Amino acid sequence: MINGVTAKVNTDELIMQALREDISSEDVTTNAIMKEAKLGEAQLICKQDGVICGLPIFKRTFELLDETTEVELLAKDGDTVKKGQLVATLRGDMRVLLSGERTALNYLQRMSGIATFTAELMKELKGYKTKLLDTRKTTPNNRIFEKYAVKVGGATNHRYNLSDGILIKDNHIGAAGSITKAVEMAREYAPFVRKVEVEVETLEQLDEAIAAKADIIMLDNMDNATMREAVARVAGRAETECSGNVTKERLREIAEIGVDYVSSGALTYGAPIMDLSLKNMHPVE
Amino acid sequence: MINGVTAKVNTDELIMQALREDISSEDVTTNAIMKEAKLGEAQLICKQDGVICGLPIFKRTFELLDETTEVELLAKDGDTVKKGQLVATLRGDMRVLLSGERTALNYLQRMSGIATFTAELMKELKGYKTKLLDTRKTTPNNRIFEKYAVKVGGATNHRYNLSDGILIKDNHIGAAGSITKAVEMAREYAPFVRKVEVEVETLEQLDEAIAAKADIIMLDNMDNATMREAVARVAGRAETECSGNVTKERLREIAEIGVDYVSSGALTYGAPIMDLSLKNMHPVE
Amino acid sequence: MINGVTAKVNTDELIMQALREDISSEDVTTNAIMKEAKLGEAQLICKQDGVICGLPIFKRTFELLDETTEVELLAKDGDTVKKGQLVATLRGDMRVLLSGERTALNYLQRMSGIATFTAELMKELKGYKTKLLDTRKTTPNNRIFEKYAVKVGGATNHRYNLSDGILIKDNHIGAAGSITKAVEMAREYAPFVRKVEVEVETLEQLDEAIAAKADIIMLDNMDNATMREAVARVAGRAETECSGNVTKERLREIAEIGVDYVSSGALTYGAPIMDLSLKNMHPVE
Amino acid sequence: MINGVTAKVNTDELIMQALREDISSEDVTTNAIMKEAKLGEAQLICKQDGVICGLPIFKRTFELLDETTEVELLAKDGDTVKKGQLVATLRGDMRVLLSGERTALNYLQRMSGIATFTAELMKELKGYKTKLLDTRKTTPNNRIFEKYAVKVGGATNHRYNLSDGILIKDNHIGAAGSITKAVEMAREYAPFVRKVEVEVETLEQLDEAIAAKADIIMLDNMDNATMREAVARVAGRAETECSGNVTKERLREIAEIGVDYVSSGALTYGAPIMDLSLKNMHPVE
Amino acid sequence: MINGVTAKVNTDELIMQALREDISSEDVTTNAIMKEAKLGEAQLICKQDGVICGLPIFKRTFELLDETTEVELLAKDGDTVKKGQLVATLRGDMRVLLSGERTALNYLQRMSGIATFTAELMKELKGYKTKLLDTRKTTPNNRIFEKYAVKVGGATNHRYNLSDGILIKDNHIGAAGSITKAVEMAREYAPFVRKVEVEVETLEQLDEAIAAKADIIMLDNMDNATMREAVARVAGRAETECSGNVTKERLREIAEIGVDYVSSGALTYGAPIMDLSLKNMHPVE
Amino acid sequence: MINGVTAKVNTDELIMQALREDISSEDVTTNAIMKEAKLGEAQLICKQDGVICGLPIFKRTFELLDETTEVELLAKDGDTVKKGQLVATLRGDMRVLLSGERTALNYLQRMSGIATFTAELMKELKGYKTKLLDTRKTTPNNRIFEKYAVKVGGATNHRYNLSDGILIKDNHIGAAGSITKAVEMAREYAPFVRKVEVEVETLEQLDEAIAAKADIIMLDNMDNATMREAVARVAGRAETECSGNVTKERLREIAEIGVDYVSSGALTYGAPIMDLSLKNMHPVE
Repeated sequence: MINGVTAKVNTDELIMQALREDISSEDVTTNAIMKEAKLGEAQLICKQDGVICGLPIFKRTFELLDETTEVELLAKDGDTVKKGQLVATLRGDMRVLLSGERTALNYLQRMSGIATFTAELMKELKGYKTKLLDTRKTTPNNRIFEKYAVKVGGATNHRYNLSDGILIKDNHIGAAGSITKAVEMAREYAPFVRKVEVEVETLEQLDEAIAAKADIIMLDNMDNATMREAVARVAGRAETECSGNVTKERLREIAEIGVDYVSSGALTYGAPIMDLSLKNMHPVE
Repeated sequence: MINGVTAKVNTDELIMQALREDISSEDVTTNAIMKEAKLGEAQLICKQDGVICGLPIFKRTFELLDETTEVELLAKDGDTVKKGQLVATLRGDMRVLLSGERTALNYLQRMSGIATFTAELMKELKGYKTKLLDTRKTTPNNRIFEKYAVKVGGATNHRYNLSDGILIKDNHIGAAGSITKAVEMAREYAPFVRKVEVEVETLEQLDEAIAAKADIIMLDNMDNATMREAVARVAGRAETECSGNVTKERLREIAEIGVDYVSSGALTYGAPIMDLSLKNMHPVE
Repeated sequence: MINGVTAKVNTDELIMQALREDISSEDVTTNAIMKEAKLGEAQLICKQDGVICGLPIFKRTFELLDETTEVELLAKDGDTVKKGQLVATLRGDMRVLLSGERTALNYLQRMSGIATFTAELMKELKGYKTKLLDTRKTTPNNRIFEKYAVKVGGATNHRYNLSDGILIKDNHIGAAGSITKAVEMAREYAPFVRKVEVEVETLEQLDEAIAAKADIIMLDNMDNATMREAVARVAGRAETECSGNVTKERLREIAEIGVDYVSSGALTYGAPIMDLSLKNMHPVE
Repeated sequence: MINGVTAKVNTDELIMQALREDISSEDVTTNAIMKEAKLGEAQLICKQDGVICGLPIFKRTFELLDETTEVELLAKDGDTVKKGQLVATLRGDMRVLLSGERTALNYLQRMSGIATFTAELMKELKGYKTKLLDTRKTTPNNRIFEKYAVKVGGATNHRYNLSDGILIKDNHIGAAGSITKAVEMAREYAPFVRKVEVEVETLEQLDEAIAAKADIIMLDNMDNATMREAVARVAGRAETECSGNVTKERLREIAEIGVDYVSSGALTYGAPIMDLSLKNMHPVE
Repeated sequence: MINGVTAKVNTDELIMQALREDISSEDVTTNAIMKEAKLGEAQLICKQDGVICGLPIFKRTFELLDETTEVELLAKDGDTVKKGQLVATLRGDMRVLLSGERTALNYLQRMSGIATFTAELMKELKGYKTKLLDTRKTTPNNRIFEKYAVKVGGATNHRYNLSDGILIKDNHIGAAGSITKAVEMAREYAPFVRKVEVEVETLEQLDEAIAAKADIIMLDNMDNATMREAVARVAGRAETECSGNVTKERLREIAEIGVDYVSSGALTYGAPIMDLSLKNMHPVE
Repeated sequence: MINGVTAKVNTDELIMQALREDISSEDVTTNAIMKEAKLGEAQLICKQDGVICGLPIFKRTFELLDETTEVELLAKDGDTVKKGQLVATLRGDMRVLLSGERTALNYLQRMSGIATFTAELMKELKGYKTKLLDTRKTTPNNRIFEKYAVKVGGATNHRYNLSDGILIKDNHIGAAGSITKAVEMAREYAPFVRKVEVEVETLEQLDEAIAAKADIIMLDNMDNATMREAVARVAGRAETECSGNVTKERLREIAEIGVDYVSSGALTYGAPIMDLSLKNMHPVE
């Protein structure tokens, strides 16, 4: 959740960095023309339907430029919004509104895009126990925003990064000698609060992973029949995750098979942005 | 160009930040299982056709983790690549290959996606003088990579940020009192090496912008007829940029009208990623 | 593991910061007297028995000051060392040896102290299945070093920080309304690779935690009798962790009771340093 | 003194870094369960007797997470406190209290531990002119906190780091050719506001240091008899510092000998922490 | 303009870094003597005539140390001030005034010096259309302050840095093969909002630059006669900039010749500081 | 001394920051025209007589951009150089030479200017025991370079910053109640390796400072007669520093009076730069 603590500790710094990316010395145009502060207002309007996400980031961007900027949010993250809907009003020095607009929207549009896309995929899973997961295929230096948007869209987060989750892959298994040995080594080494996940590509590997008492087994690139057999063999002794070739069309089939989780990198790299814009900016007395 | 100097001064730091995002303490799985360095190799393979972009970033990611990693590039940025094509081979400590893989691919896939999408749009403009431009609608803290990918894809960059280009919009004009006054103030204030661009929405504004000797006039959200009239009125006295409602379908029409530039935010927010993956990772003697 | 990747991504920066803390402008004494590089050698000697830990950090400190410094390690982290034992030899510009000595030793002595103290406590648990855990009671900005030292000493790490582990405490339960609700909310919210741990102080709470299917149950400040009853009730349906009033003297009793884990903040805040020093520094031809 | 200026310029940044160490993305447990701000209170209670130190740092930790948090301090740094004593009350968003608790206590416990241990050693020196000094054997990236705690405990700081004090050691003397030459070079080179200290191990070296007009002479690892002779020979022409093998037991003997200063690394690496905890956290209307 | 946005995004961080340069741990003298906050006042007085510049930076320095410090500005950047004139009053914790004084003045004196020197040179150009330009010969890590001071002094900024302006020099031309080719490559490569400037040393090069349609032509180190001929040949088809051997004495001659711009590195490296000081600091009730 | 350790710990970072100031995204001109590395050479030539200073910084600037750049220094810091003298040759990728040139020269010219100016003032003091001191009136974020240049020019450094020297001024005395009390408090509080300096403006204050056993007494803004009397009264019981109204012309008079030190802010704010330039840059086979 991007609340105050997360902002102070993590996201503020990233937003400030993004502002510096856009203002490496000063906003030349605005400073050329508006030498004095001038109070203004503007409206944040949706230009398409979707699930809004990133409003606290949008608001914070302006506050970081000028703590007196007032951004009133008329919706909250996760709300379904409609084209034309007013989702926030802004009031503050027009120079601040102009200088912050692009960065604020760049965050909001991407985050809302991910939330909207995620929510859409979630519909396919309605009525099934299968949960939708993101991956680490996020945009560099935007993971905290993108993983949050996935959650706002209704899906579940996979591990945050290489440090907070164990996922034993092919090459790890090769290096360890066997799945059994790899699981053991992971359990021996890692903080004990981590579950151990193993990626398997065949039913033989699956059996070994079950025997090794993996907490989670990733069924990688399996066809439906194999996956069905896999789920049956696991029989609740581990959680199962379907990975690879996950398309919107196939989601329901996967759910039907009964895996616990299905992961899709597309949540964070394939979501179209949601169009929003600042409108009616104008000076006020 | 992301050459050595740019890397040392700017991109290395961003890549390192992305690596820290993915490895906040250590790569737990890899460190659990591979306690010693083990020489390995892997191949970077295209999983779809496109224009490759970001290879120096891909390579640099591994080098930043371990300067002895050898990444041999078999293609160069801007090359058209085919599904299945081998574009690079990697050789180094397998732990480094495993820990760096995701971050390296996250950059490469997005950058290649943008280059590919841009190149596709450029085909529409073939034979026309109209040039395609990006915008500031980039992913936060990824602008240097995304603007570069646009260039690799064959299009032209608009201003980099608020500090290095002047773009006089509605609210600036309102604050200045008139287009004429706004252009004057911008020229008075800004470093003299900057061109002055003015955004106009009507032909009346256009006439004023021409009279004010704007270097570039952005024709915002005009229909084809109005735009045609606008270009005629400008008659070469300024450069013209078409902005708003720019779709792939409409690109050729716009070019036909004869504007000098057409800008599209979609270059950086609407490009699907290009699929690439590390394959055949294996230990070597 | 503090290998090359971890160093590049995380520890190098902390070591460099520590060097800056000690050299805010320059090493005045050394620079006053030694205007030219002068090749020298020195020896790293243990001044007491213990388990050595932090040698790669020790070595890296000098390399960060001057990459040509040669530090040959004659032991490896986790080795039992004896008073008087030579554990490393250094060769390089004497100015580098003098300027880096204190920072290098400050790390090494604290890390070896923790490893030694941990190893000592581990002896109490010999023959038992109970594992010893650290806590988040580490020295600010030294967690990566201290948690590593705990592992080198033979114990197991608890969660790394607030972001990578779930530990539901009193106040969380209060806010959620019940243990059951809190566990549900945590499972709903957190990345699915995390285990859910609940802290309980009474057997009633314990029963609720078991029913809520907590993965780990922390038995907080229980006396031996209650803990014994708790372990019996859990009956393998969750992992158990004993916390609070854990002293060296009591460790064996706790183990006897059969909890899976016992955690002790003292591992990182109560370990005396291990004394080591640079000796026989001298110029060489 | 860790007042406002020092905080803004130096310690705030270190505290924030420590918070980031503990919250690399977000406080998962708290955010899972407490979606909205909830006003709460808590009490900071001593769990053992001692000299409290670090209260402004404790307070600041919460304020950095949320500037509206109210931490009322009921004691001030340097006060003697008793087991069970209430030293501060906290009031603010319970999520902030929960997320900041560990980091705040990690500072406070270590700083109070050092102040308490220092104060205890100071008792041995009561009635003597000899002053107790710390060293550079501090925990990396915690020096500003630890040196402050030493001062709060009643002792005196030695040089802060390699840049702000001159201490000519064995190897410097070797490089210079003689003590006389080394002192001259240091005086020639260093900012003139620095005193020049020389470390000597024998009476011959001492005589040379006196003749060279060293401001301070460190008597390193001398037995009592030699030290007595050294002090006599110095006869007030330089300040004297006893270093090496300084134990609590020997402190009074050293003082009796009449050296001006006695330094002990144990002040910062040997002090047990002082136990404090946040109690009675509860929501308020 | 160093307004609020520029401060938040860029200058605050540089000021804070300067404060850290001056206070690497704490202000020892002030903290030794003033243990408690003590309200005080002081006056900022000009000690010579000139053009004041940097007042917002001066003010901000104290606010960054303590946001409650009140600095009332009685003049604004660009004002002509007289020796003895009171330009600001300060009110706040005297410790803050003492700790921030030097850093605040170091900025203010240098910036006012540049503005004053620039304004003086501008007098030579009075009545001419020729504009005075600065260069990139600024003090490292002070460019944003120094370029601003040049503007405050009445001159115009040249490009901010290597990223936001194109200046084709000798070696670029050599590498490209010809001026024509170089201009083409620059136009092809750079963001289209940039003008293309070419440095020429001879009339032959000039003709080529004109033919290549360079936007700006820098006439480098030409004598007056050659420059006059150059301006005549350009005949308004490009802007002209005179560079090299620009002294105060020669400025009017250059203007007379009719170049559009004349650039002088001395604006930022040759300006004497303007003397200002904090006076009458005293405690208040 | 700006040797390897100082570079790694402190100056490299500042140089890199200066390079980022000059290259916020990329060197557009160079990258537009020189797409491939091209080996080139250049010469660093003095354009006026002086004392060279900053050569290691000059060299390092290019190495930080590309570690393979070869900069051969033909002089060393402190050498007297003549107009036209070749002081270094450079060999490397011409793009690196072009991109680094300005930043490297910006450092070198300022540092050489200070060293030259200092050396000139030092001539006035020839034959006298009086030493010349700098002050804290340095350019923000350039102190380490400027104080070093002062030393290279032959003068002595005053305290580095507020943290490493004690200087009791008017307001401190006021706050303490008396000079005696202020000196006592400073000695009580500060690290014992610091000398205590007191600023006095009258002979009465002087007497009090002598009685308080100040280590150094700054005679502030005294006329020659008073200063002479002051030095006589001190009679070697403290070091004396003359401060205020120190001009080149008056230096010899001051020296004659016999103060131990004379300090001048002009060393760092009043030195004209020394002109140097990169010449004959050309490609090589």
